[in-house]
Amino acid sequence: MRNFDVEKYLSEGAAAYGKRSDIEAMADTLTKRGYQNIVVIGIGGTWAEWAPVVQVMRHYTDLPIYLENAAELCIRTDKRFLTKESLVITASASGDTKEILAAVKMCKEMGIEVAGFTKHTETLLAKELDHIVANPCGDCEGSYLMFFLLGLRLLFQRGEFPNYIKFADQMAGLYQNLLRIREEFEPKAAAIAKSYAKEPYSIFVGSGTLWGETFLFSMCILEEMQWVRTKSVTSADFFHGTLELVEKDVPVFLFKGEDEYRELDERVERFCREFTEKLTVIDTKDYILEGIDDEFRVICSPMILTSLVTERLAAHYELTTGHSLKFRRYYRQFEY
Amino acid sequence: MRNFDVEKYLSEGAAAYGKRSDIEAMADTLTKRGYQNIVVIGIGGTWAEWAPVVQVMRHYTDLPIYLENAAELCIRTDKRFLTKESLVITASASGDTKEILAAVKMCKEMGIEVAGFTKHTETLLAKELDHIVANPCGDCEGSYLMFFLLGLRLLFQRGEFPNYIKFADQMAGLYQNLLRIREEFEPKAAAIAKSYAKEPYSIFVGSGTLWGETFLFSMCILEEMQWVRTKSVTSADFFHGTLELVEKDVPVFLFKGEDEYRELDERVERFCREFTEKLTVIDTKDYILEGIDDEFRVICSPMILTSLVTERLAAHYELTTGHSLKFRRYYRQFEY
Repeated sequence: MRNFDVEKYLSEGAAAYGKRSDIEAMADTLTKRGYQNIVVIGIGGTWAEWAPVVQVMRHYTDLPIYLENAAELCIRTDKRFLTKESLVITASASGDTKEILAAVKMCKEMGIEVAGFTKHTETLLAKELDHIVANPCGDCEGSYLMFFLLGLRLLFQRGEFPNYIKFADQMAGLYQNLLRIREEFEPKAAAIAKSYAKEPYSIFVGSGTLWGETFLFSMCILEEMQWVRTKSVTSADFFHGTLELVEKDVPVFLFKGEDEYRELDERVERFCREFTEKLTVIDTKDYILEGIDDEFRVICSPMILTSLVTERLAAHYELTTGHSLKFRRYYRQFEY
Repeated sequence: MRNFDVEKYLSEGAAAYGKRSDIEAMADTLTKRGYQNIVVIGIGGTWAEWAPVVQVMRHYTDLPIYLENAAELCIRTDKRFLTKESLVITASASGDTKEILAAVKMCKEMGIEVAGFTKHTETLLAKELDHIVANPCGDCEGSYLMFFLLGLRLLFQRGEFPNYIKFADQMAGLYQNLLRIREEFEPKAAAIAKSYAKEPYSIFVGSGTLWGETFLFSMCILEEMQWVRTKSVTSADFFHGTLELVEKDVPVFLFKGEDEYRELDERVERFCREFTEKLTVIDTKDYILEGIDDEFRVICSPMILTSLVTERLAAHYELTTGHSLKFRRYYRQFEY
C-alpha cells in the first residue's frame, strides 16, 4: 500500500490497545468518584470522533450525555448541566488545540475535574487534566478505540454494557482486521481517487454512527488537507435540499452504516443510483471482522470507515492531486 | 422591490400576527394539561426554523427541550424522553411532509398528543394533530414569529419569560420593520446577487441563533431552489477545516448575529477580511427595529436574516441566474 508502513501500523495499534488497562483504571477511578452526567468536549475532528461514541453510549444508557463544541461551550456555559458532579472528558492529540484548552481551563476554574486523552504527559492539555491517558499515535482509529474503551467501560461499571470484557478482549484483533480491510480496499481507493480527486465539488452523505466520520473526512481531511470542495449532509437531510444538486456528473459519496439508520442510507442510495453516474458507496458491512462478534460491528463501523477513507482514500487523493496532506496555508500556521 | 407585493406582504403579516390569540390559547391549554419536557419535531427547513426558537427557549428555562429530526426520530424512537408526558410540537406548511407525517403518526400510535402548525385545517398533518394553529402564509418569518409566540408563551406560563406580553405586543410592528429593512437592503441584494449568484461554490458561515437560517438558506434555498453549490459551517467549526478553502476569489458569506456567539462570528470576519476579496457580511445589528426593545433583538434576528436572504437575496439570485425559485427536478416531484 502506498505510503503505508505495515510494521509501524501494527506496532502503533498494539500501543493504542496497550492503553486498555490505563483506560480501564481511569474509568474505574471516575466511577468510584461518581458523577451525575457526562460532558464530552471536542471541536472539529475531535468532536467528530466522539460523536459515534456518544451515540452508541446513549443507546445503552439513560444517563444524560452532552457532546459539546469547545468554542461554543466557553461562550454559553450551561451551569445547569456542567457542574462539579459532571464527568468531563476531552481529547486533543497535539494537546494544544486552542478551544479545547480554553474549555478545560474554564472547567478547572469552576472546580470541575477533567479527564482526557493527549499525545503524552507533557502537552499543554496534559498539564491541565486531572486524569490522563496518553494517546500515542493520535490517528482516528486509535482515538475511536480508546474513546470507546473508556465510554463502554464506564457503562460496564454501571451495569449497562455487560459484554464489555468480551468486547475489549476482541479489540486485540482489531488492527489485524483493519490492515486486511485496507488491503482489500486498496485498488478501490486508487480507482476512486483517480476518478474524483480533481472534481470541483463532491457531496458526502452518511448517518447515525458514521455521521461523525462523514463530517470529519469531508471537512478535516478533504477541505483542510486537500483543498477539495465538499458538502457533507446527513442521509435524512439530503432529501431536503441537497438532492436537487445531483446530476449525472456530480460525485456523491455515500458512507453506508450498520446501525438502525441504514434504511436512510439505502434511500439515498436508491435515489442516487438513478440520478448520478458518479456514485461511490462505501459500505462497512462489506468488510469482515474476524474474531469480533456481530453485536460489536456498529461500534467498529467508524473504525472501518476511517481506515478506508480518512487513511487510505486520503493517501490516494494526495497521489492524484499532488497536494501534500501535511501542508496547511492557515490552520495552526499563525494566530487567528 | 422586484417580485414583491407590499400590500400582500403586510396583509399576510397581519394574518400571521393575527394568530397570536390562537397560539396563546393553544399554549395555555397545553400548560394546563401539563408536560415533563418538550419535543420539537422538524426536518430540513422546518428543523432549521425551530432551531433558534429552541436555542432561545433553552436560554430561559431548565426544562429539557429536544429538537428532533423527524426521519431519525422514527428510526431510533427514544422512549426515555418521548412519552405521554411530553409536549410534542411540529410544523409543516404544506402539511404533507412525509417524514413529519410519519413521526406524528408514530406519536399518535404511542398515545402521545401532538400540537402543530400547518397551512389550514384540511391538510394531511392537520388531520393528525390534536392541537392546531393555521399558518396561513408559511414563509419563514411568519413561522419564526408563530413558533416564538408559542415557545415564549409556554415559558411565560412557567414564569420563565415574564416579559412575554410586552414582547408579543411589540411584534405587532414586526412586519413594518421587516418591510423597511428589506427596502434598505434591496440595492445590496441586487449587488450581491450580481457578484456571486453564478459562482461555482460559496461558503456560508453563521452561529448560535442564526445557525438554523444559515443552514436553511444554503440548503433549502440555494441548493434546492437555485442549484447553487454551497458549504455551510458554524463559526466555531469554520476554523477546523473549511478555512483552508478560503482564497481571494472564494465567496464567503458571514451571517453575523447578536447573541453571545457573536465573538465567534467576529473571529471568522477578521480571518476572511484578510484572505478573500469576496466576503459578504450580513449583520442583523445593522438594521434598526423600531418599537421593539433591545432585549428582544436576538429573538428577532433570524426574522431579519430570513427577510434579507431567504426572501430578498433569493429573489435577486433568481433574477441573475434565470433559474426559477419555483422549479424542482426531484424534490416532491415523484416518490423516492
